Amino acid sequence: MLRPIALLTDFGYQDAYAGVMKAVIHARLPGAVIFDLTHGVPAQSARNGALQLLSAAPFAPENTVFVAVVDPGVGSERRPIILRSGERLFVGPDNGLLWPAAAHFGEPEAWAADYAEFHLPSVGSTFHGRDVFAPVSAALAGGVDPERVGTPISNPTRLELPQPQYDGDLLRGEVLLIDGFGNAVTNLRPKDLDDPPIEGARFGVRGVEVTGPSACYASVEPGDSVILVGSLGYYEVAVRDGSAASALGLREGDPITARVG
Amino acid sequence: MLRPIALLTDFGYQDAYAGVMKAVIHARLPGAVIFDLTHGVPAQSARNGALQLLSAAPFAPENTVFVAVVDPGVGSERRPIILRSGERLFVGPDNGLLWPAAAHFGEPEAWAADYAEFHLPSVGSTFHGRDVFAPVSAALAGGVDPERVGTPISNPTRLELPQPQYDGDLLRGEVLLIDGFGNAVTNLRPKDLDDPPIEGARFGVRGVEVTGPSACYASVEPGDSVILVGSLGYYEVAVRDGSAASALGLREGDPITARVG
Amino acid sequence: MLRPIALLTDFGYQDAYAGVMKAVIHARLPGAVIFDLTHGVPAQSARNGALQLLSAAPFAPENTVFVAVVDPGVGSERRPIILRSGERLFVGPDNGLLWPAAAHFGEPEAWAADYAEFHLPSVGSTFHGRDVFAPVSAALAGGVDPERVGTPISNPTRLELPQPQYDGDLLRGEVLLIDGFGNAVTNLRPKDLDDPPIEGARFGVRGVEVTGPSACYASVEPGDSVILVGSLGYYEVAVRDGSAASALGLREGDPITARVG
Repeated sequence: MLRPIALLTDFGYQDAYAGVMKAVIHARLPGAVIFDLTHGVPAQSARNGALQLLSAAPFAPENTVFVAVVDPGVGSERRPIILRSGERLFVGPDNGLLWPAAAHFGEPEAWAADYAEFHLPSVGSTFHGRDVFAPVSAALAGGVDPERVGTPISNPTRLELPQPQYDGDLLRGEVLLIDGFGNAVTNLRPKDLDDPPIEGARFGVRGVEVTGPSACYASVEPGDSVILVGSLGYYEVAVRDGSAASALGLREGDPITARVG
Repeated sequence: MLRPIALLTDFGYQDAYAGVMKAVIHARLPGAVIFDLTHGVPAQSARNGALQLLSAAPFAPENTVFVAVVDPGVGSERRPIILRSGERLFVGPDNGLLWPAAAHFGEPEAWAADYAEFHLPSVGSTFHGRDVFAPVSAALAGGVDPERVGTPISNPTRLELPQPQYDGDLLRGEVLLIDGFGNAVTNLRPKDLDDPPIEGARFGVRGVEVTGPSACYASVEPGDSVILVGSLGYYEVAVRDGSAASALGLREGDPITARVG
Repeated sequence: MLRPIALLTDFGYQDAYAGVMKAVIHARLPGAVIFDLTHGVPAQSARNGALQLLSAAPFAPENTVFVAVVDPGVGSERRPIILRSGERLFVGPDNGLLWPAAAHFGEPEAWAADYAEFHLPSVGSTFHGRDVFAPVSAALAGGVDPERVGTPISNPTRLELPQPQYDGDLLRGEVLLIDGFGNAVTNLRPKDLDDPPIEGARFGVRGVEVTGPSACYASVEPGDSVILVGSLGYYEVAVRDGSAASALGLREGDPITARVG
């Protein structure tokens, strides 16, 4: 039984870059099951990619090989790595991109994917997705153990998401990412507030209180902002039928505060 | 034999939202065959989504499970539904999105997809695509009957496309959607005009006669507008090597007239 | 064993046009393996599509059926064709789009895909992707020989990429395409310069010398331009963490020069 392969990159949709990775995988592993998480990660935003991978990994089959490529330093000496966490395998650059998703399931084991027999003979050196990550993932999905694909390493790069901090009874967090709808996903979760009941906390963004938290967009009028528990399990700032990022001028890293009661 | 699953959403391509739906389906149904119709439906445009689903459904395998998610009211009390029409199954929100495609094949049977055992335990309440529609479609594709997934309902929301009207010998219609090329798809079909031969009707948009109907773009000069029978079987206004929407300032809902002879 | 089918079009991602092609293929060929190269080819740019197909084809399984649709003249009398080169089959319009990729593997055999029994009964005449290319590719992927799908032809349209020219010891080339990251892919390859070692050639764009060639983006500072051997095997002009097209005002067809030593 082949492991399914899930792809996430910042290659975009104009070019065949992500398609070429699929071509390599199908050539190396007939019968491969490949599905796209997204290829629309904002260019070179490893943190955005890491969060999206984290949002998807818990819902995929446990034996999935996740291949993620978001790497400002592509072609540099950055090593390709494999992380294993339970049954799940993660393949990508050693820049922290894989870390939050892999560490979500426990302390990962790690390897450099450095055995050349599992790479393509390289035409250029700038397309690790095609020449390294795709053939390595095909090998892993076909049942090759990570031990046979590279050297064990003890120090993969960790990417720690910023943690909210208490300031008296005020919890201070920040905007982790803006999604394609303009929703501002924060790093605050209900459990950070001792799981208050819905309507049991008050949120401030840019000094203004935002309605909610609410169970749905429909609780406010079109054009109004509202706090929801979003699909990643974090509170997010949304605007009904609109973009919170545009309406409130929100960007990654902007502060948000929460207070219970 | 598993039913194939066809996906259509307005989730866009920046985020992993559509990818997470695929992750859920693969986790619930190993061997699932999934294909994307599009995830680029203009945000919250249920009518655009309904038309695109209608354009695709007749060409898909008869046993396809179509999963469509375009829902301005997501997270509200809107119920998830299943429609069955012949061998085809349709899963999505009860806002009319599924109706034109399902009704194309006859009067659909309908169920609320309300049995929690076929849902994911919900993290937030705003992502029905992941928590309800994906696992329900996996169950259906795996052979579970709709009767076992939810309660029969008799009143699913219908979305009726605007019908053209005769005004003397003038047929009045409107622009149903603008596609990604800027073509303006109308609600007029050859059969509304008693199937006139090509070149057998005259069309007016914004008071100006448009060349055609023609069999192909190449019948006019680059930059000129022309009426064609488009891929949905409706007349559409196109501009050769250009965008009719931009060139003529066309938008959804704009009137168009046709006269035979 | 079914042949895999690889898709490349300029249909974009807003509409279900590419999805409808997949629907047709799945309906005609249960168990079909389909993967997307891209649907984001700039509208009607057959040369861009041809280059992208060329960049992907060598990495796909040898028995792949490549289906490519980029055709400004769709609906005209342009004939649909099939090219065969070794084990590979190519399906698309006869406008040169398929040529560079097919010819990469030797002199292709060619057929018009003109036997109506392998087409869909056509609703309109503007959607050859759905009505001709999809069902023809399903037949080929299922094992039907091209000889049975259409008439042999001896004169398929060739699209020759512009070749670099020596001017004394200066090699003159041009920009073939701008990719989605803003990299400017040229028609110069290391072998055109007798495979000089990295750092062994000097490049000029718009009269200014560009750093490189280098093995990686990381060899220059963010915002600086650099010459790399890109993923297609051609030299390309890139800007670290930026867009060469924007920073240098580069467009398709712009000249580039190289000098060894």
